[in-house]
Amino acid sequence: MVKAELKYRVLYSHTDVMGIANNERYLEYFEAGRNELMRSRGFPYTELEKLKIGLPLIEAKIKYIAGAKYDDELRITAEMGKMQGVRLTINYKIFVGEKLIAEGYTEHAFVKLGSLKPVRPPEEFINIFK
Amino acid sequence: MVKAELKYRVLYSHTDVMGIANNERYLEYFEAGRNELMRSRGFPYTELEKLKIGLPLIEAKIKYIAGAKYDDELRITAEMGKMQGVRLTINYKIFVGEKLIAEGYTEHAFVKLGSLKPVRPPEEFINIFK
Amino acid sequence: MVKAELKYRVLYSHTDVMGIANNERYLEYFEAGRNELMRSRGFPYTELEKLKIGLPLIEAKIKYIAGAKYDDELRITAEMGKMQGVRLTINYKIFVGEKLIAEGYTEHAFVKLGSLKPVRPPEEFINIFK
Amino acid sequence: MVKAELKYRVLYSHTDVMGIANNERYLEYFEAGRNELMRSRGFPYTELEKLKIGLPLIEAKIKYIAGAKYDDELRITAEMGKMQGVRLTINYKIFVGEKLIAEGYTEHAFVKLGSLKPVRPPEEFINIFK
Repeated sequence: MVKAELKYRVLYSHTDVMGIANNERYLEYFEAGRNELMRSRGFPYTELEKLKIGLPLIEAKIKYIAGAKYDDELRITAEMGKMQGVRLTINYKIFVGEKLIAEGYTEHAFVKLGSLKPVRPPEEFINIFK
Repeated sequence: MVKAELKYRVLYSHTDVMGIANNERYLEYFEAGRNELMRSRGFPYTELEKLKIGLPLIEAKIKYIAGAKYDDELRITAEMGKMQGVRLTINYKIFVGEKLIAEGYTEHAFVKLGSLKPVRPPEEFINIFK
Repeated sequence: MVKAELKYRVLYSHTDVMGIANNERYLEYFEAGRNELMRSRGFPYTELEKLKIGLPLIEAKIKYIAGAKYDDELRITAEMGKMQGVRLTINYKIFVGEKLIAEGYTEHAFVKLGSLKPVRPPEEFINIFK
Repeated sequence: MVKAELKYRVLYSHTDVMGIANNERYLEYFEAGRNELMRSRGFPYTELEKLKIGLPLIEAKIKYIAGAKYDDELRITAEMGKMQGVRLTINYKIFVGEKLIAEGYTEHAFVKLGSLKPVRPPEEFINIFK
């Protein structure tokens, strides 16, 4: 299981009138988890960039279970899911303390930076994360 | 069919290194469409707030089909979906010109502002949007 | 006087717990005004990009006078200020109705995209905006 | 000298087409520093909220010296400045490694949450931070 965990603080600027973190920010929390997942295996996302490869999202789903409040310390877990051809899925859970407040996934395509055309993932990436 | 359409400009601050609008912003584009949908029927979201009712997201799904570039004028459509009990679904499509670049939905729960406890939607809301 | 005006809606995602637009968003409102200013003279920012020139901020100042609430329609004015060498200042005012709620400026440097090294502004830009 | 320091990672969603963190995000970096400053003295911002007091910005200035790139680990310092009547200034510096990439300040007013009317800062706050 390729998995990582990150602590992340809810800032005031993340919140909205309803008094909880705005729905939009959860995709940023997922990104923070994703970054940590790659870094934790010695292959940070910047390594992909050096190979002129990007990983744009092709799909995202978020299930909002409970609100995150200003100054909550989120615990974000990110776990590699299915990797097939040029596609990759990553699964996330967000906790406040032991309480699960959100979960979801992002699906990505490996693309060439610039043209954004699909490319095969680098061998090294497959070896590490599959 | 309860549906509305909105033009929305991609700002520089929406983009990321990859040269396209960052995935996180699409939930903001959906929100802009949702606002317009409610306003277009004479029942803007601020009317809900006057009744001390909020509509937080309980689920969101986004399918990213093609990138939106800086300064693109997005055409966002929002359409009321299923409304059942305290739950409401809204469907979105985002176009650049005639090209569909993203689609998805948000599912919401009617809640009392403050406690965030579920409440029945106001009669007026049901009459207008169902 | 080279000046333009834009209407801009405060979204829910712009606000924070305090019930007003978060301070961070005002730089986005300034950007929206700046874009409009350039477009209004037939020289949108994308024209600069075609010339491989960027206009990153080197300084920004914002005076917050009154809060903007969710769904307020902002009226943003942007006006060209001093242009000297590779530097350019733009001045902004934000109104809700007739009430001035914020003002400020951004100072920019003309740079070569990629290296981000300073470059002279294009003649056409100077002719239009000076 | 009342001062604190925080490490903060530049996410992909912070960046823009120019390849560096978007100017708007620096106010978020300042906020992260400000939060840490208050927390570091045992009086986090949430304590103010319990007293129904807010600290909205009345002015902000940012000097952008060099770009922050994706995945840079920022070192943000926040230092209490002048505190006079209902006003408070906080000064910030942002470093990447030893290189200063931005500096600025935010000026705040103590206000009653809800009405946003000015109020005297709590004695405890003055004792700790002045």
